Amino acid sequence: MAEKKKRKPLILVTNDDGITAPGLRALAETMSLLGDVVVVAPDSPQSGMGHAITLNHPLRLEHIEIADGLHGHQCSGTPVDCVKIAIDKIIRGKPDLCVSGINHGSNSSVNVIYSGTMSAAVEGAIEGIASIGFSYLNYSYDADLSAAKHFAKIIARNVLKNGLPQGTLLNVNIPALPLGNNSSKKDFIRGVKICRQANAKWEEEFDERTDPNKRKYYWLTGKFKNYDKGEDTDVWALNHGFVSIVPVQFDLTAHHAIPFLNKFRFDE
Amino acid sequence: MAEKKKRKPLILVTNDDGITAPGLRALAETMSLLGDVVVVAPDSPQSGMGHAITLNHPLRLEHIEIADGLHGHQCSGTPVDCVKIAIDKIIRGKPDLCVSGINHGSNSSVNVIYSGTMSAAVEGAIEGIASIGFSYLNYSYDADLSAAKHFAKIIARNVLKNGLPQGTLLNVNIPALPLGNNSSKKDFIRGVKICRQANAKWEEEFDERTDPNKRKYYWLTGKFKNYDKGEDTDVWALNHGFVSIVPVQFDLTAHHAIPFLNKFRFDE
Repeated sequence: MAEKKKRKPLILVTNDDGITAPGLRALAETMSLLGDVVVVAPDSPQSGMGHAITLNHPLRLEHIEIADGLHGHQCSGTPVDCVKIAIDKIIRGKPDLCVSGINHGSNSSVNVIYSGTMSAAVEGAIEGIASIGFSYLNYSYDADLSAAKHFAKIIARNVLKNGLPQGTLLNVNIPALPLGNNSSKKDFIRGVKICRQANAKWEEEFDERTDPNKRKYYWLTGKFKNYDKGEDTDVWALNHGFVSIVPVQFDLTAHHAIPFLNKFRFDE
Repeated sequence: MAEKKKRKPLILVTNDDGITAPGLRALAETMSLLGDVVVVAPDSPQSGMGHAITLNHPLRLEHIEIADGLHGHQCSGTPVDCVKIAIDKIIRGKPDLCVSGINHGSNSSVNVIYSGTMSAAVEGAIEGIASIGFSYLNYSYDADLSAAKHFAKIIARNVLKNGLPQGTLLNVNIPALPLGNNSSKKDFIRGVKICRQANAKWEEEFDERTDPNKRKYYWLTGKFKNYDKGEDTDVWALNHGFVSIVPVQFDLTAHHAIPFLNKFRFDE
């Protein structure tokens, strides 16, 4: 009985695709099944913003109705700005959970570093909040997000119940497959795997064009290359029909490199 | 004799303060003592840009004379964009070393994540290039950079000679103290320490203002708080007059959290 009287958890929801993205609404709806939801999200798309913060100009913050019955705040800054301003100016304290997404597209492997979605979750973790970034491997705004919502709910409920080890957060990627009853079937999501970040990267290829004034300009494009043959990586799990969960840390110290560096000579 | 005939190392120099910053010129000058230098830097200040990349609009790239006799390329993108476009469109291959800075201001502890300077070095490391970010603990563009140049040269020479362990780069911070002959003196730089990233963070405080149209706006400000009592951290080293070197990795997997997560139940 005491259980039922407990305060509902307070859940901060943000993303990097911007406040109008279907993935944000899907995540806010899902989290409202688990607690009270506060949405603070960028007022424009912020994909690829990484851990950028806004230092050179001020921020705007507006309360809006995002969709029927769903209210939130749009912020003119980056995803990381959204988490910071939510804590200082909206919640005026720390939520019990910070979730970011559902991102329209993968944030597996090295994409954790470029992703605004993941950086918002990293910022939550820096603030000492249990934090999760969710990404769905389908870029379309028309995609069916029901499988992603299903796993977002299960994973968030686990984190609310068990917490996360200090200084860590979760990078969750969900394959673009339907939920299935028979987990042995190849064309359905087969389950969840705890993984490490795959050793993969983008090989950039800038697309060079000429504007009407004869000046060159460049579009950043690239090919994703996986150099990792391990079967314990997020890329492997996703390619084999599993939801991947990578525990992420923001202490970037490469402890194993310290003995090597201690052999350097720093006297001229 | 064979030693003298070796090809000079090719060194990519970038930063986040922008191509006009004195720190960039100081680093380019210093690196020219060690090899052939290619400068590709943002055409505007990009502090706090983290690992942002430019996806939603195209990039410009112009060859310019930065200062007397020093040529380089300015790019309209972020520090990470600069590294990517340098490799694909200017060097058309990989340099032997990628250095970023000298940043005007500290990038110790958690600042490694927000810093455009450090993110450029991280991008170099993702590309498999030995990479170093340099930061000097004085924000002034008029600061005397001679101590920072001194250590940048020694550290870069070590890295060119010995390389770095795979998947790592260096975060170097230099205290705002003069070089001294007597290393026991408190008011001089006392030496170099290999460190771990301190457990410190910013406590944000948004400065709320009202514009002439009566609409609110917010400036991101904050107080830096060090929660780490360890004497092996970068913050400790800098506070005690040492140059700090933290080896940094871009595999963010929190391996120690995997057993904890494997106890989660993902069946509804």
